[in-house]
Amino acid sequence: METYRELGKRLSNWGRWGEEDEIGTINLITPEIRVAAAALIQRGVTFDLGIPFSQDGPQPGGNRVNPLHLMRETGENQDFPGGFHFADDYVVMPLQCATQWDGLSHVFYDDHLYNGYPSTNVDSHGAAKNAIDALSKDVAGRGVLLDIAGVKGVENLEAGYVVTPEDLDEACAAHGVVVRSGDILCIRTGWRTVFTRAGDAAAFMAGEPGLGLASVEWLRERDVAAVASDNWAIEALPGETDDALPVHCVLIRDLGMTLGEMFDFEELAADCREDGRYEFFLAAPPLKFARAVGSPINPLAIK
Amino acid sequence: METYRELGKRLSNWGRWGEEDEIGTINLITPEIRVAAAALIQRGVTFDLGIPFSQDGPQPGGNRVNPLHLMRETGENQDFPGGFHFADDYVVMPLQCATQWDGLSHVFYDDHLYNGYPSTNVDSHGAAKNAIDALSKDVAGRGVLLDIAGVKGVENLEAGYVVTPEDLDEACAAHGVVVRSGDILCIRTGWRTVFTRAGDAAAFMAGEPGLGLASVEWLRERDVAAVASDNWAIEALPGETDDALPVHCVLIRDLGMTLGEMFDFEELAADCREDGRYEFFLAAPPLKFARAVGSPINPLAIK
Amino acid sequence: METYRELGKRLSNWGRWGEEDEIGTINLITPEIRVAAAALIQRGVTFDLGIPFSQDGPQPGGNRVNPLHLMRETGENQDFPGGFHFADDYVVMPLQCATQWDGLSHVFYDDHLYNGYPSTNVDSHGAAKNAIDALSKDVAGRGVLLDIAGVKGVENLEAGYVVTPEDLDEACAAHGVVVRSGDILCIRTGWRTVFTRAGDAAAFMAGEPGLGLASVEWLRERDVAAVASDNWAIEALPGETDDALPVHCVLIRDLGMTLGEMFDFEELAADCREDGRYEFFLAAPPLKFARAVGSPINPLAIK
Amino acid sequence: METYRELGKRLSNWGRWGEEDEIGTINLITPEIRVAAAALIQRGVTFDLGIPFSQDGPQPGGNRVNPLHLMRETGENQDFPGGFHFADDYVVMPLQCATQWDGLSHVFYDDHLYNGYPSTNVDSHGAAKNAIDALSKDVAGRGVLLDIAGVKGVENLEAGYVVTPEDLDEACAAHGVVVRSGDILCIRTGWRTVFTRAGDAAAFMAGEPGLGLASVEWLRERDVAAVASDNWAIEALPGETDDALPVHCVLIRDLGMTLGEMFDFEELAADCREDGRYEFFLAAPPLKFARAVGSPINPLAIK
Repeated sequence: METYRELGKRLSNWGRWGEEDEIGTINLITPEIRVAAAALIQRGVTFDLGIPFSQDGPQPGGNRVNPLHLMRETGENQDFPGGFHFADDYVVMPLQCATQWDGLSHVFYDDHLYNGYPSTNVDSHGAAKNAIDALSKDVAGRGVLLDIAGVKGVENLEAGYVVTPEDLDEACAAHGVVVRSGDILCIRTGWRTVFTRAGDAAAFMAGEPGLGLASVEWLRERDVAAVASDNWAIEALPGETDDALPVHCVLIRDLGMTLGEMFDFEELAADCREDGRYEFFLAAPPLKFARAVGSPINPLAIK
Repeated sequence: METYRELGKRLSNWGRWGEEDEIGTINLITPEIRVAAAALIQRGVTFDLGIPFSQDGPQPGGNRVNPLHLMRETGENQDFPGGFHFADDYVVMPLQCATQWDGLSHVFYDDHLYNGYPSTNVDSHGAAKNAIDALSKDVAGRGVLLDIAGVKGVENLEAGYVVTPEDLDEACAAHGVVVRSGDILCIRTGWRTVFTRAGDAAAFMAGEPGLGLASVEWLRERDVAAVASDNWAIEALPGETDDALPVHCVLIRDLGMTLGEMFDFEELAADCREDGRYEFFLAAPPLKFARAVGSPINPLAIK
Repeated sequence: METYRELGKRLSNWGRWGEEDEIGTINLITPEIRVAAAALIQRGVTFDLGIPFSQDGPQPGGNRVNPLHLMRETGENQDFPGGFHFADDYVVMPLQCATQWDGLSHVFYDDHLYNGYPSTNVDSHGAAKNAIDALSKDVAGRGVLLDIAGVKGVENLEAGYVVTPEDLDEACAAHGVVVRSGDILCIRTGWRTVFTRAGDAAAFMAGEPGLGLASVEWLRERDVAAVASDNWAIEALPGETDDALPVHCVLIRDLGMTLGEMFDFEELAADCREDGRYEFFLAAPPLKFARAVGSPINPLAIK
Repeated sequence: METYRELGKRLSNWGRWGEEDEIGTINLITPEIRVAAAALIQRGVTFDLGIPFSQDGPQPGGNRVNPLHLMRETGENQDFPGGFHFADDYVVMPLQCATQWDGLSHVFYDDHLYNGYPSTNVDSHGAAKNAIDALSKDVAGRGVLLDIAGVKGVENLEAGYVVTPEDLDEACAAHGVVVRSGDILCIRTGWRTVFTRAGDAAAFMAGEPGLGLASVEWLRERDVAAVASDNWAIEALPGETDDALPVHCVLIRDLGMTLGEMFDFEELAADCREDGRYEFFLAAPPLKFARAVGSPINPLAIK
């Protein structure tokens, strides 16, 4: 059986967009694709795919905590000319605590980042290569939702369930959609509802359904630009092998594909079921955090 | 002469979208407007209007500091099965430190927020009404750039320069654009370049050119949905009167209009000058910070 | 039965040290007491009563999280003349997350702080009165340990166990110590071990043994300067009445007594058992956090 | 001329207290010294040598910012049984932003920390060796103030002024004090007043008077346990050579001596001038920050 390293080498995009490239498969979102995607805005309705950033989020504490929101000013006890009052606030948070894009500096193996940059480019000063702000202009185009849980008729897939190429094909067929080069692919597993039903962060974080390594090849064959899911790590956990997060390793480090985690597809999926259209315009620009390895986002799907 | 309170009362939108409304003029971005705006995506090119979020930003310290970016993991000294390594990072920042939307809870006077909510809704727990996440779905539509500095032929307007209705009309005429209901209006003063030319945060923060009270009425007459600028407070500083930030007071508290601050219009303006089109699709969703009075953003203009 | 308000009024120290006083019973640590306490330093051994400040601490998340320690510099990838390297770090933490003194602005009722200051003195800018840095010079003197759990012969008292005046008297008799005016009283309940035995933060936070209202009067009669314990809130939880934290209310707001929480007495208590001396020199200066309502500390007991 | 490396090698304490040692010269504070120091508590007066931790501190921003103090609860809008109200607060700060001890992991050269530990022990997870909490029990003993500025009759020494062994001897003679093994030596340069006189953080940080390399040898000959000063980096800046911070390098990395920075000696020095006694009991325990490379402190001098 092929190891993830062998798979990664076989599917590698290193050098494909030049030796200086830092955005990987996001290069696949061409201007033409964006123009075509604009035609998907037909009813003018929007779906915010971000989850709330709050201390009631799914993080268990430890290395990743929920966002901490603190008020610097509330408007009280101020004395400005004319009676003006203002409120200001602060946030402390991991850039990986809720809905986010992974930067291409977020994951690596064998001492190299995507496109062959030495992993020493990431240090306590942040990422000198493949930082998240490299993607600041480009993440807008056609989004496609594959509602795997919906097609299977379950509220959510179970933790450890491996989403296969067959599952992806089945969903495409059921939805009447063809995944194309440059698409931002949205995989609904229903796992978001494990958290929202009872607010059980521990259950949400204990594992998840998600992509397996065979699906990585499926994404590569179609030249998907990015993949997002409603779980917290894209891939099935526990995984198919003893390796830690092999899907991350191949997608981010070998393909140069950003991963979108902790998206909320519930309203969007309900709408897609209703109108039968699983494609939409998607705008999800990361914040321009300098040298960061990820960014919180609030992706906007527009139909 | 009319005080800002009198002006605010005359132009007030309180109750216009119901007693429960918390999004104000963003209501004016209708689905139809969004569909029409999609047709502005003709070349598929994007412009990221956010400034970098970094410790080299324009904040002078004190109540508002620049974003503090710290690495939790760099990938070094990790020992995961299969050789996986990951980097994680944290940010500490004021939600008002760089490119942002103001929540309608950000500014008030006379003990009431927009739509009549008592200002006690904002306390150390955040904003119970008019929080920024109320806008999470809606900020996508037609953007229009009025390049006041460009029309005047200057690199930047001077601090204290008051942008008047005549200036706005002049720019509309020069650009061949008509500002309409539901537009997200982008006012370029060139002030961004005061910071970028020499990195002088103190000069950038010492004052700014910007809107005056007469322009507030101009915005209200056209039913603009939101207004953004490349300065840090939308309005001229020092201002027209001794009142602190009267344009903020009327726009946010009386009209219920969100303000976009510290946008970067430089690349966009250059493109508009070249192709003669000052309108574009604009997607600028705030992050869904619960109970927050503002949100950092990276607005995406698409032509 | 006397309510906590009635008890507080009866025992009140308001005005006792003048209308401007902000340090309360810490006034009772006179220079003479400090000189006498110095004579308790006989073997030169020290006991650090602070618990570790780390993300593995007892905080459950939510409003109070464990300290978050992040590296700004690790020494790597630096290039200073002569080969110098340095490491720097940051902390984000509640001032109440581990071993701490409560400021006299930390708790109040009926709109007034200790010594009659209106509670509006505490706002989003911090505490304008009774801030923790008022105590910055004074917290050094005689400490006395009452090892209640030890006297009872249990590893720890149970959650909800109310430490009574009889318990305090019994411990004094067993230890051969008399509690005097100006003493910093240390109450060992053994509750610290509920956390250290199995690292169970939830069990540690679910309740605790601690002082009851009758013991408050006992402290007042002896004119104790401060009281510290190895639980997280000094008082029995669940408490004797339906009121939230009545012991806090009377001690801090009426007596003006600072409370020391989450101390670790394990090594000290073992030593006291061995040498039979339950008194010692105690130095526990709060950090000079301006306008803060509490401070993390590492109290040093010296025998 | 001897390089700092040669000096460091000649004066090295590596191995002196065993291969496992992580506290260096703090070992020199013996129990006997502590008992003798207690006898210096004769009037019972205290001097808090910490500077305020506030956003008005001397940090210029960038890598080290001033402490950021934010309120989590102010007591308002709470509804607890019985009328209890509480305030809670957070701090975000560099552990090196105000009065502090340097951990022995704070500075290194040639890939090794104090006592020969590889510098890879410091990474994004903090310091695995020589962390500041190693000192948590021990920093209490005899303090000696050498008021160099006072002896010279100036408000403050100038930036770049190198404090020499002759200066130290002169101060000892003037004060009638002998520096002995295990002393915590406090060097007053008056530099603190450069900040307090006009609040000019830039002037305070632009340089400083302080120790030179010859004084390092003086400290080593007397076996001082720790050295603290009222500047921000102990040593003269600009320094005697082109090397960056050579005094840090030798003191911390070769001698294993912790450095105390940004102490405030003004009140203490005035008292010493008055009573003629420049020795005192000093208790300055660091907070027990796990894996940290330094700790904020509020040192207490007691006479």
